[in-house]
Amino acid sequence: MAKDVGVAEHGSFSAKDYQDPPPAALLDPEELTKWSFYRALIAEFIATLLFLYITVLTVIGYKSQTDPSKNSDSCGGVGILGIAWAFGGMIFVLVYCTAGISGGHINPAVTFGLFLARKVSLIRAVMYMVAQCLGAICGVGLVKAFQKPYYNRYGGGANELNVGYSIGVGLAAEIIGTFVLVYTVFSATDPKRNARDSHVPVLAPLPIGFAVFMVHLATIPITGTGINPARSFGAAVMYNQAKAWDDHWIFWVGPFCGAAIAAFYHQLILRAGAVKALGSFRSNPHV
Amino acid sequence: MAKDVGVAEHGSFSAKDYQDPPPAALLDPEELTKWSFYRALIAEFIATLLFLYITVLTVIGYKSQTDPSKNSDSCGGVGILGIAWAFGGMIFVLVYCTAGISGGHINPAVTFGLFLARKVSLIRAVMYMVAQCLGAICGVGLVKAFQKPYYNRYGGGANELNVGYSIGVGLAAEIIGTFVLVYTVFSATDPKRNARDSHVPVLAPLPIGFAVFMVHLATIPITGTGINPARSFGAAVMYNQAKAWDDHWIFWVGPFCGAAIAAFYHQLILRAGAVKALGSFRSNPHV
Amino acid sequence: MAKDVGVAEHGSFSAKDYQDPPPAALLDPEELTKWSFYRALIAEFIATLLFLYITVLTVIGYKSQTDPSKNSDSCGGVGILGIAWAFGGMIFVLVYCTAGISGGHINPAVTFGLFLARKVSLIRAVMYMVAQCLGAICGVGLVKAFQKPYYNRYGGGANELNVGYSIGVGLAAEIIGTFVLVYTVFSATDPKRNARDSHVPVLAPLPIGFAVFMVHLATIPITGTGINPARSFGAAVMYNQAKAWDDHWIFWVGPFCGAAIAAFYHQLILRAGAVKALGSFRSNPHV
Amino acid sequence: MAKDVGVAEHGSFSAKDYQDPPPAALLDPEELTKWSFYRALIAEFIATLLFLYITVLTVIGYKSQTDPSKNSDSCGGVGILGIAWAFGGMIFVLVYCTAGISGGHINPAVTFGLFLARKVSLIRAVMYMVAQCLGAICGVGLVKAFQKPYYNRYGGGANELNVGYSIGVGLAAEIIGTFVLVYTVFSATDPKRNARDSHVPVLAPLPIGFAVFMVHLATIPITGTGINPARSFGAAVMYNQAKAWDDHWIFWVGPFCGAAIAAFYHQLILRAGAVKALGSFRSNPHV
Repeated sequence: MAKDVGVAEHGSFSAKDYQDPPPAALLDPEELTKWSFYRALIAEFIATLLFLYITVLTVIGYKSQTDPSKNSDSCGGVGILGIAWAFGGMIFVLVYCTAGISGGHINPAVTFGLFLARKVSLIRAVMYMVAQCLGAICGVGLVKAFQKPYYNRYGGGANELNVGYSIGVGLAAEIIGTFVLVYTVFSATDPKRNARDSHVPVLAPLPIGFAVFMVHLATIPITGTGINPARSFGAAVMYNQAKAWDDHWIFWVGPFCGAAIAAFYHQLILRAGAVKALGSFRSNPHV
Repeated sequence: MAKDVGVAEHGSFSAKDYQDPPPAALLDPEELTKWSFYRALIAEFIATLLFLYITVLTVIGYKSQTDPSKNSDSCGGVGILGIAWAFGGMIFVLVYCTAGISGGHINPAVTFGLFLARKVSLIRAVMYMVAQCLGAICGVGLVKAFQKPYYNRYGGGANELNVGYSIGVGLAAEIIGTFVLVYTVFSATDPKRNARDSHVPVLAPLPIGFAVFMVHLATIPITGTGINPARSFGAAVMYNQAKAWDDHWIFWVGPFCGAAIAAFYHQLILRAGAVKALGSFRSNPHV
Repeated sequence: MAKDVGVAEHGSFSAKDYQDPPPAALLDPEELTKWSFYRALIAEFIATLLFLYITVLTVIGYKSQTDPSKNSDSCGGVGILGIAWAFGGMIFVLVYCTAGISGGHINPAVTFGLFLARKVSLIRAVMYMVAQCLGAICGVGLVKAFQKPYYNRYGGGANELNVGYSIGVGLAAEIIGTFVLVYTVFSATDPKRNARDSHVPVLAPLPIGFAVFMVHLATIPITGTGINPARSFGAAVMYNQAKAWDDHWIFWVGPFCGAAIAAFYHQLILRAGAVKALGSFRSNPHV
Repeated sequence: MAKDVGVAEHGSFSAKDYQDPPPAALLDPEELTKWSFYRALIAEFIATLLFLYITVLTVIGYKSQTDPSKNSDSCGGVGILGIAWAFGGMIFVLVYCTAGISGGHINPAVTFGLFLARKVSLIRAVMYMVAQCLGAICGVGLVKAFQKPYYNRYGGGANELNVGYSIGVGLAAEIIGTFVLVYTVFSATDPKRNARDSHVPVLAPLPIGFAVFMVHLATIPITGTGINPARSFGAAVMYNQAKAWDDHWIFWVGPFCGAAIAAFYHQLILRAGAVKALGSFRSNPHV
C-alpha cells in the first residue's frame, strides 16, 4: 500500500515510509567469509575488463580508420560521438548487468564516493578498487594484443592533458566530470527515492550511462576524459609512455575529489544531514 | 487495487481515480520557512550550472577541433549531432536527478509554464528563475575559464539569430521549440496519467530530454536553439558582445510565449478546463 | 495478485488473466457527441504538425549547412544519422505525449492497421487521417515560411524515388518499412501483454520510435523514407513539383499494404485467430 | 507483498522468494504438438528476416552514398555510427516484439547459450537456428534484389576478416563480443532478478540492444562484427565469394564459444552452481 499512496500523494510524501540502511561497518571481517563477496569481486573484475576492452578498441579502431596517411576517407570511422557512446553505453549495459551482484561500481571513484557515504565497508572498497584496476589492465592488454600494429601509434587510449590546457584546467575538468557522474549515481540509488518509486533500481543504469556519455562529449578535447581511475590506470600501464605517467596523478586526484564533493553534496545538502543540523529552522518536520 | 484496474480496463478508466492537487497559492509565506525550499533552490542552481558547463564546453570543443585553420580533419569533433545530444542528454540526466528535490525545471520557461498552470507559487517561480540564471552564468564562466584561448573566438556558445533569418522567424522558432518542450513536460507529469500509470514520474525525464534533443536538431541552424532563457542569458553575460545582446530579447520572449501556449493547450484543450466549459455537450461524464 | 503470479510463472501464463476488448463498431454515432473525440482530433492534428515541423526543418537545415556551394565544411550538419534520429525521436516523444489522449497514431498507416484490427471505428479512422494530413500540411508550411530561400532549393523534404531504384523497389521498401513500424505498434500495445506487464503502455513509445529510426537508416537512400502517408502528403503539397506528385501514390499504397500485412500477421499468426482456426491441432488450450 | 519487501530490504533479499524453473527437457516431443511452438518458429524467422533486411540495407546504402567515385560528399551517409545503431536498435525493437512469442533470440549463439543453460530443449534450439538462418537468407536476399547494382560492389554486408588482422584476433574478437551479448541476455532475464524487480522483462530489450550496439562500435574495423551466426550465414550465402566463405567458420566457432563461456560464467560463477560446490565455505545460507 505504501507505494500506491506515495505515488498518489506525490507532493505530501511522508518521510516515515522508508528507512535508510545503517551505515556499513568500516571493517566487517564476516564479509570475507561469504562467497557473495568474492563473486562481487569477480563481477567487478570482468565488468571493468569488458569496459576497457570495448571502449579502447573503439578508440584505436576509429583512429586507424581516419588516419589520413592510410585512408583518404576522413569520415570513415565512428567519430568522437561514437567514442562517447562507447563509454556511456558500456557503463549502462554493465551497471545493468552487475547491479544485483556487486552494486555495479566499475569505477574506483564511484566506490570511493559510496565508501565516504558509508554504503560499503573499507575492506570492500579497497578490494573493489584492486579488482577494477586489474580488470582494466587486462582489458587494455587485450586491445594491445589485438591491435599490435596500431596500439602505440594511436596513443593507446591513454588519458593525457591535451596541448593548450593547463594542469589546473585538466584537474578541474576531471573533478567536475566525476561530480556529474557520482551525483547521478547517488540520485539514482537514493533509498528515499527507492521507497517511493520501486522501479528506480531497474531504471538507474540509463541515466548513469548517459552521465558518462555527456561528460565524454564535453571533456574529450581537454583530457580525453578519465573520470574513472581504473580506466586511466589500465591504459597508462599498457601504453607506458612518459607523458601518460607524468599526467597520471590528475586522473586519480581529480576523480576522487569530484566523488568526495558529490558525496558531500548529496548527504549534507540534499539529504537528511543538513536538515538535522538546521532542525530548529524548519517549521515542519516532514521535509 | 486502483492501479491494476486502471491498467486492465485501459479503455474505460474512471475519472474518479485521481485527484488534481489544489492550485498552488500565489504567495505562500510559509514556504520560505522550510529547508526544502532552499534545498530546491540549491539543486536548481547546481543543475543549471552543470547543464551549461557540459553543453557549452561541448560546443567550444567541437568548434576548436573542426577549425580548418588549426586542423585538417574537418570531421574531428562530435558534430552538431553530438551538440544536440549534449543538450538533450544533460536535461534527461538532470531532470532525473533533481525531480524529487525541486521538480527538475532547470529552465525559466518550464518554471513559467508550471506557474501559469498554478503548479508552483509566484515566489517559488521567481526564486527558481534567479537560481537558474545565476547557475547558468557560473556554468558558462567555468567554460570561459577553461577554454580561455577559444571561448570568444568560437562564439561563446551564445544564442544569436543566424545570417539569412529574419527576427520573426527566429522568434517563431523559439516559440514552437519551447512549445514542444513544455507540452512534453505537461504530458509527462500529468497527475491524471500518474494515477493510471504509476511509473510515469520515473520515466518522464527520457521524453523530456528527447524533446530538447529534437528541437536542437531542427533549430540550431536558425538561432543556435535557446528554448531556455537561463541558458541564453548565462552565455550572453559571459560572451558579452553587441550582437548577442541585441538578439537577446528573442530568447526570453519566445520561450515564455511558447510555454504559455503549451500551458493553455494542456489545461484548456487536453484537460478538464474545456470539458467543464462544454459540459452540456457531452453525453457521458467519464471522458 | 494476478500480476505477481504472471511474472513469477512467466512460462505458464494463464490465458484467462486478460480480456481482449470487444472489436470497435464500424460506425459509432455516439462517439461524435463526446468532447474526447474532438480532443483526440486536435491532439492528432497538433502532433502531426509538430512532427513535420521538426523533421523537415532538420532536413532543410542539414542540406543548407552542407551545401558545397555555400560552405566548405561538408561535415557541418547533423548528418543523415541526425535526420533519422529526428524522425524516430519525434515519434517517441509524440506517442508518449498523445497516447492517453488519442492513442498516439500520428500516421494514417498506423490508423489504418488499427482499423483493420477493429481497434478503432471507421469514422474515427477517417477523421484521424484527415486531421493528420491537415497537421502535416501546416507543419511543412511553417518550415517553408521559415526557410523561404532554402525550402525549394533543397527538395522540400518531399519523398521521391531516388535515381537508380525502380518503382517496384520503392514500393517494396515502403511496404516492409511500414510493416516493421506497425508490427512494433501491435506488439507493444497487445492487451495480452498489458495484462501481464502493466508497464508496457508507458514503455511502448520507445520501441515504436526506434522502429521509425531504424527504417529511416535503411531506406533514406531509396525513397527518403515515407512509411507515413501524412508526412509524404504534407511535403508534396508544399513542395508541389511534378516528380514528387508522380511518385506520390507509392507513399500511400506502400504504407497501407505494409500496415495491412502487419495487422494480418499479428491477428492471425501471433494472436488467437489462427489458434482458433487450428483448434483441433493443439493438445493444450492454454497457448 | 513479496515485491515491496524485496525492494525495501534491497540488501537482505531472501533467496526463497523466487523459484528457478526446472531445466528444459533435452527432447520434449509434446512441444511439437503445440501451435505455440510453430508460432515461435515463424516469429524467429520473420524477426531475423527483418533484422538482416534493415541492417544490410543500411550498410549498402551507406557505402553507396559515400563512394568517392560516385559522390563528392564523403560524409553523405549515416556513418559507421549509424550502422552500429542499425544493428543494436533492431535487436532492441525485435527482442521487445518477440520476447513474449519466442523468447526473442534472433541469434543462434543466444539460442545455444540458453540451450546450454537448459532454458530451451534441444529440439527447440535446433529448430530455432534453422528458422533464424532461413530468415537471414531471405532478409539479405531482399537487399540483394533491391540494391542489385550495388550489392556485390559494396561487399554484400558479409563478415570477413579485415586486412591486417590475424585469424586468432578475429576469432577472439568474435568470442569476447558474443560473451558481452550473451552475458547481458543472461543478466537481464535472470529469474532471481525477475522475482525481485517485476519490471525487468519489459526493460531487458534495451540493454541487450545496447550490448549489440557497443560490440559493433568496437569490432567493425576487425571483422565487420558477426556475433550472430545467422547474420553471417545469410550474408555469406547471398554474397557467395571465396573470401567470405573461407573466413566463415570464424563466425560460427567464435560466437558459439563466446556464448558457452557466458553461460558457464553466469550459471557457475554468478548463480547458485558455485555456491553449492563451495557450500561449506559460506557462513550464511542466504547469499
